[in-house]
Amino acid sequence: MAEDSLTILGFWGSPFVLRVKWALELKGVQYQYVEEDFKNKSDMLLQYNPVYKKVPVLVHDGKSISESLVILEYIDEIWKQNPLLPHDPYERAKARFWAKFADEKCVPAFIATFSKIGEEQQEAAQEARENLKILESGLEGRRYFGGENIGFADIAVGFFGRWVRVVEETVGINLIDTESMAKLSTYFDDFLELPVIKECTPSHDKLLEHNKAFHKILTSSST
Amino acid sequence: MAEDSLTILGFWGSPFVLRVKWALELKGVQYQYVEEDFKNKSDMLLQYNPVYKKVPVLVHDGKSISESLVILEYIDEIWKQNPLLPHDPYERAKARFWAKFADEKCVPAFIATFSKIGEEQQEAAQEARENLKILESGLEGRRYFGGENIGFADIAVGFFGRWVRVVEETVGINLIDTESMAKLSTYFDDFLELPVIKECTPSHDKLLEHNKAFHKILTSSST
Repeated sequence: MAEDSLTILGFWGSPFVLRVKWALELKGVQYQYVEEDFKNKSDMLLQYNPVYKKVPVLVHDGKSISESLVILEYIDEIWKQNPLLPHDPYERAKARFWAKFADEKCVPAFIATFSKIGEEQQEAAQEARENLKILESGLEGRRYFGGENIGFADIAVGFFGRWVRVVEETVGINLIDTESMAKLSTYFDDFLELPVIKECTPSHDKLLEHNKAFHKILTSSST
Repeated sequence: MAEDSLTILGFWGSPFVLRVKWALELKGVQYQYVEEDFKNKSDMLLQYNPVYKKVPVLVHDGKSISESLVILEYIDEIWKQNPLLPHDPYERAKARFWAKFADEKCVPAFIATFSKIGEEQQEAAQEARENLKILESGLEGRRYFGGENIGFADIAVGFFGRWVRVVEETVGINLIDTESMAKLSTYFDDFLELPVIKECTPSHDKLLEHNKAFHKILTSSST
């Protein structure tokens, strides 16, 4: 596989880029990584993702794929080792359901908690907590969404363990309650401690510094 | 396959429910259809889709799957005949990309065009037109997104041909321009004329009547 040309266009702090990195690391596939500058998007990014102009983009032998969950499916189909999706169609559907729930319900609530102020922020935080509680129900007594090993849904939701805690600390609001969501909280800890994940995930402190600086810009422009 | 217990919980006017019907019809799989009452959601719906409480839900041998694109993947994995997704992983990624684009970019712009008024409505209509133009680029000179035959992305976007025209007529705004989007317009016509699709798709007039009545309720409550 090493002779394939494989490049991720990414940004180090993006949870969606992390998904792609994690998937390739889990598969043991070598890739090049190109850091994008948001203020000055590269020609390569505009060429390979003309619709969204966003990272991550995976470029495989000159063919580009964008949207992180679409990229995960592609990676799982091209490199069969260490499957991300389970074999059983119903289990596959559940994994896709939780990944979609993460993007469509959880992420917008986290972003609103981070970027809004006052009542809107409180409402978003409440919605975020409710969605995290629903997400927890998806574990169904398993260690990971994938069962004994991490899989597609874990790759999709695992970054909440780092990102949401950074959001909490930045805005001073609790979201992952360690008592009422003990199972989810432990799950996030376990996930982030896995060597293959830990190795290519930015530290809490580095992400916090970045998010605090970004939050300062956001809130100063909204007041 | 007929001995499997297979039920769609749906609503006749929902484009997302249509996707599931179309997929099963294309596969030639028999199913039961249960019409849901929005004002009085059935216990079955609440039991089988506790997270979203929305149609469509597919119940297969007692196991429930929700979210139309997740259901399409499941159907394609369980019943292999007449594949919806192509064989090639890159082509599969493209099909998934356009289906996702339809739901995340096109649908919200159509809904806003339908439900907003004044300047907000004009902005939504402009966004809808831009997204339809981007969608058209996905055809890449093919007859259907799936090539010579319809597939996953066609099942996901094909209903725009009926629904968007109903929106246009309801609010009096042109979205699918037959000149600048001639290819897309012809594509929608061809898709909707396919016997397997036509047979289980509500007519323009029936959908128009329903949407006009719904639009009246919406706009009277927003003024």
